[in-house]
Amino acid sequence: LIPATTTGAALASVRRNETDAACVPIENSIEGGVPAVLDALIAGPPLVIIREVQIAVQFALMARPGTEMNMIRTVGTHPHGEAQTRHWMGDNLQQASVVMTSSTAEAAAQVARGELDAAVSAPVAAAMNGLKILAGDIADNAAALTRFVLVRPPCAPPEPTGADRTSVAVTTKNQPGALVTLLTELSMRSIDLTRVESRPTKDRRDSYWFHLDCAGHVAEPAMGEAIAALKRRCDQVRYLGSYARSSPPDDPASSLEASGIDSAVPEADKAKGDGGADFNASFDWLRRIRSGTIG
Amino acid sequence: LIPATTTGAALASVRRNETDAACVPIENSIEGGVPAVLDALIAGPPLVIIREVQIAVQFALMARPGTEMNMIRTVGTHPHGEAQTRHWMGDNLQQASVVMTSSTAEAAAQVARGELDAAVSAPVAAAMNGLKILAGDIADNAAALTRFVLVRPPCAPPEPTGADRTSVAVTTKNQPGALVTLLTELSMRSIDLTRVESRPTKDRRDSYWFHLDCAGHVAEPAMGEAIAALKRRCDQVRYLGSYARSSPPDDPASSLEASGIDSAVPEADKAKGDGGADFNASFDWLRRIRSGTIG
Amino acid sequence: LIPATTTGAALASVRRNETDAACVPIENSIEGGVPAVLDALIAGPPLVIIREVQIAVQFALMARPGTEMNMIRTVGTHPHGEAQTRHWMGDNLQQASVVMTSSTAEAAAQVARGELDAAVSAPVAAAMNGLKILAGDIADNAAALTRFVLVRPPCAPPEPTGADRTSVAVTTKNQPGALVTLLTELSMRSIDLTRVESRPTKDRRDSYWFHLDCAGHVAEPAMGEAIAALKRRCDQVRYLGSYARSSPPDDPASSLEASGIDSAVPEADKAKGDGGADFNASFDWLRRIRSGTIG
Amino acid sequence: LIPATTTGAALASVRRNETDAACVPIENSIEGGVPAVLDALIAGPPLVIIREVQIAVQFALMARPGTEMNMIRTVGTHPHGEAQTRHWMGDNLQQASVVMTSSTAEAAAQVARGELDAAVSAPVAAAMNGLKILAGDIADNAAALTRFVLVRPPCAPPEPTGADRTSVAVTTKNQPGALVTLLTELSMRSIDLTRVESRPTKDRRDSYWFHLDCAGHVAEPAMGEAIAALKRRCDQVRYLGSYARSSPPDDPASSLEASGIDSAVPEADKAKGDGGADFNASFDWLRRIRSGTIG
Repeated sequence: LIPATTTGAALASVRRNETDAACVPIENSIEGGVPAVLDALIAGPPLVIIREVQIAVQFALMARPGTEMNMIRTVGTHPHGEAQTRHWMGDNLQQASVVMTSSTAEAAAQVARGELDAAVSAPVAAAMNGLKILAGDIADNAAALTRFVLVRPPCAPPEPTGADRTSVAVTTKNQPGALVTLLTELSMRSIDLTRVESRPTKDRRDSYWFHLDCAGHVAEPAMGEAIAALKRRCDQVRYLGSYARSSPPDDPASSLEASGIDSAVPEADKAKGDGGADFNASFDWLRRIRSGTIG
Repeated sequence: LIPATTTGAALASVRRNETDAACVPIENSIEGGVPAVLDALIAGPPLVIIREVQIAVQFALMARPGTEMNMIRTVGTHPHGEAQTRHWMGDNLQQASVVMTSSTAEAAAQVARGELDAAVSAPVAAAMNGLKILAGDIADNAAALTRFVLVRPPCAPPEPTGADRTSVAVTTKNQPGALVTLLTELSMRSIDLTRVESRPTKDRRDSYWFHLDCAGHVAEPAMGEAIAALKRRCDQVRYLGSYARSSPPDDPASSLEASGIDSAVPEADKAKGDGGADFNASFDWLRRIRSGTIG
Repeated sequence: LIPATTTGAALASVRRNETDAACVPIENSIEGGVPAVLDALIAGPPLVIIREVQIAVQFALMARPGTEMNMIRTVGTHPHGEAQTRHWMGDNLQQASVVMTSSTAEAAAQVARGELDAAVSAPVAAAMNGLKILAGDIADNAAALTRFVLVRPPCAPPEPTGADRTSVAVTTKNQPGALVTLLTELSMRSIDLTRVESRPTKDRRDSYWFHLDCAGHVAEPAMGEAIAALKRRCDQVRYLGSYARSSPPDDPASSLEASGIDSAVPEADKAKGDGGADFNASFDWLRRIRSGTIG
Repeated sequence: LIPATTTGAALASVRRNETDAACVPIENSIEGGVPAVLDALIAGPPLVIIREVQIAVQFALMARPGTEMNMIRTVGTHPHGEAQTRHWMGDNLQQASVVMTSSTAEAAAQVARGELDAAVSAPVAAAMNGLKILAGDIADNAAALTRFVLVRPPCAPPEPTGADRTSVAVTTKNQPGALVTLLTELSMRSIDLTRVESRPTKDRRDSYWFHLDCAGHVAEPAMGEAIAALKRRCDQVRYLGSYARSSPPDDPASSLEASGIDSAVPEADKAKGDGGADFNASFDWLRRIRSGTIG
């Protein structure tokens, strides 16, 4: 485990083969997609997601021993940390300036070095830096979940589990109805879209990368057909991986360790995947009419 | 070549393996589909179309030598012959009753046997039965073309020519939008529908067999995918064959022999078929992302 | 009530204002659409349907008193009569020639005049022409229903009943997906298509008039919006009327009189029409956002 | 003109009727949508957009006179300011901590009060606070445009100009294909979607508010019909206004004043709006068939 100062740096080190994989946050149930990660997945050589986990990130206010709440003038944290504790800080730390750091871990380290008065970070950072927790569980929305993904260079996807997710990013051809047509490629094949997020392409106005998360695995025939259809229909397609869907932790306060990257898929979700029996039966029939075995 | 009294009889003899194939009319450019043929293709063991030809059927009024126009009291012909010469007969044979026969050839034979005064049939029938042509080219619409198809028991389709047609008949599941959804399976894959014809299923009200003719060949990936999708989506699917599209004769008066079952496909039409390059490229890409060769 | 020799003649007399309306068969549950009527509704000045009735047409074999079955050499009937009694006649009248007449009533009249030996016609024609019924109920499929429509020059449609049908005929613009797009105009507005029938336009190859029957009334907002959309999207649109849907007779052998043109609509069907409450609520909301009353 | 500390505060003051309208940034061509504004438009009583303007926001590094680059330890700015100058600051101010402020104007004020060493803000803020510009034009992407909208309580929309935009936010019913179906309501009516942005609804997982920008005006028939259709089809609809589309400034460095809220719509864009002639003609035809004037 090698910490990186930013998600961009973590992904860059994977692209340079300095690390095998990077674990980065891609979406928060309150704040939405993480723009820097979505953009970094697209910009540069291909990377694929091989795992995901949803965790309820905890935030605590921590300082050097001896510091009291009313002595805090500067609080460091990452913008996502700030967004998720904004109301609490507005109520409790009005006198302090918020200093943006590259990560919440870095904020805690700066407090330890005396460069900041306090940090909003994960509780574990207090122990690692010899800091004292002044207030725990300060997230404005305790049920907020952050989805993290494990990203690596292109490789064969993990085996289908029956409850998988496939991520892809596409740009549409510049013509009327382009978006509705590509989404129809999914709906016609009964593929559920679980997330759609648009990001400016930055090089053309009114032009977007659409990040799509779909229920299913690229090894399944329906998803394979759909992904191939997107390839034909879209201007650009970035396949971003097929991987087991994680279930949210039962206890929203559970930590990364508790929820576990290997958390079992609920049986109910598994039942949804049919392994493509319907498609395979139709392909079998097609082979037989092509060969003249049946009419 | 074995003549049959009706199209139904011709198809039945193929189903009983008494004949290798049957040549039956399926559609007329003025009268529309031939209901008896469309229904007979569905009812019974599977049959497939392997060839088509479009010809301008000629009609002549013929009688035994010595018969004059004003002596004719009964004229025999097949209902399609009647439909295509109705106006001419209304103008020229008002005094005569039209007798429906099982085929136009049968009408000529009955005239030869003295059972009818005259027949509306193909000119060749006059020579075969020793009759005299009283009036030629009596079709109301000289440009009318009839499409004939060569039908046989299930076999591998002829090789794709780049300008093919695929025929299929389907019944939809009884749910809203069922027809539009199945046609979308074709349009999403850029498959042109060249004919659609509905026939009552006879066993349920407001329920139809839809006969669809599409541009393309079942051996091509786009058509294969579409046909497999219809298999999944429809209540019943009857694959009725993939075969070279015939071009209409330049001269609408040309005979079956002249137009030729082997008539070359126009170069312009051939250019339209891309042999599925677009689909194959997308399948190739799919194979590579599935194996992890690319991202 | 003025009998006409053919359906075409009946419609022509309405167009010439010689009659107020014409009652013509438009569809049979076994034989499908009646091509001559479908084509005649399109060719010529506009006509609209204001009523429909579904009846189980009965066929009887009738002859002059004294005629026995084995004496019959000629049997007159209309082609639809022939189609619906074909199997019975093949089993029972092999020795006879079938003579096509302009209507089944005309066949009975010709028998009375001694021009034919027997007629296949409605039982009532025997009484009207002093003929004797040799065999009743000879239709091959006793459950076959024929839908008749009452047609007149353009007029405001009858009031909506909550269980209505709207008929329209359209030609599509000559572009890919034209048919699926126009059907989508219906399905997007939850309008059920109860019948679709294609007829060659006769002036262009691979070009069709599509006759569409839809559940609903043109006075309802959903149907109004859909019909206006077809007007914009199609090459040609013929509005053919909105009228109460008839229910099929409980007893398939019931006569025209029994089933009645005024047959009540089943309560179950009526419940389906919502009078457009959903649409009207959305239009009301639209008016308010346009006026700035709400956001 | 009353400055507000945050976009949320600006919108809240409009909702409390303390101000007539608020001018807030809604989208940046590089950074994408502004989540806080998108979310605030939805949460609370309705507000509508009546104007938009696209401007190239300029950023300068400013400090109190006497401060040199190498003396800067703290730089204040708003997160969007940080995002748009990240690379420049990484290259030129590695030794400094970035302090997040509620707005870029507030950062300049804090520098003037001696609470921060420097600010990244608009050049005009230097003059207003007696600061010196150490570096101008420091945005990483000089062509980046920010779209600002003028928001007020519900009112009738401005008159259509022929080149308008309509903004709406919707949540879909929780059923397969819900998104594709609602986008089809737009595409079927030839309405261009110029932006789509998803935001978590925060109360349900995998559930989103979709912010849609469409070309056209709610007073036009096509847009009216489409918006009413969304009302019927969506779980929730927030109409967010119809207003003239602004054209981007020719000179990306032009200021808000230069580009002007009243900037003329390009003639080319105007030509696209047909004022609904096509729709109005179809409605006129509908009125006539409903009244029986035509068939």
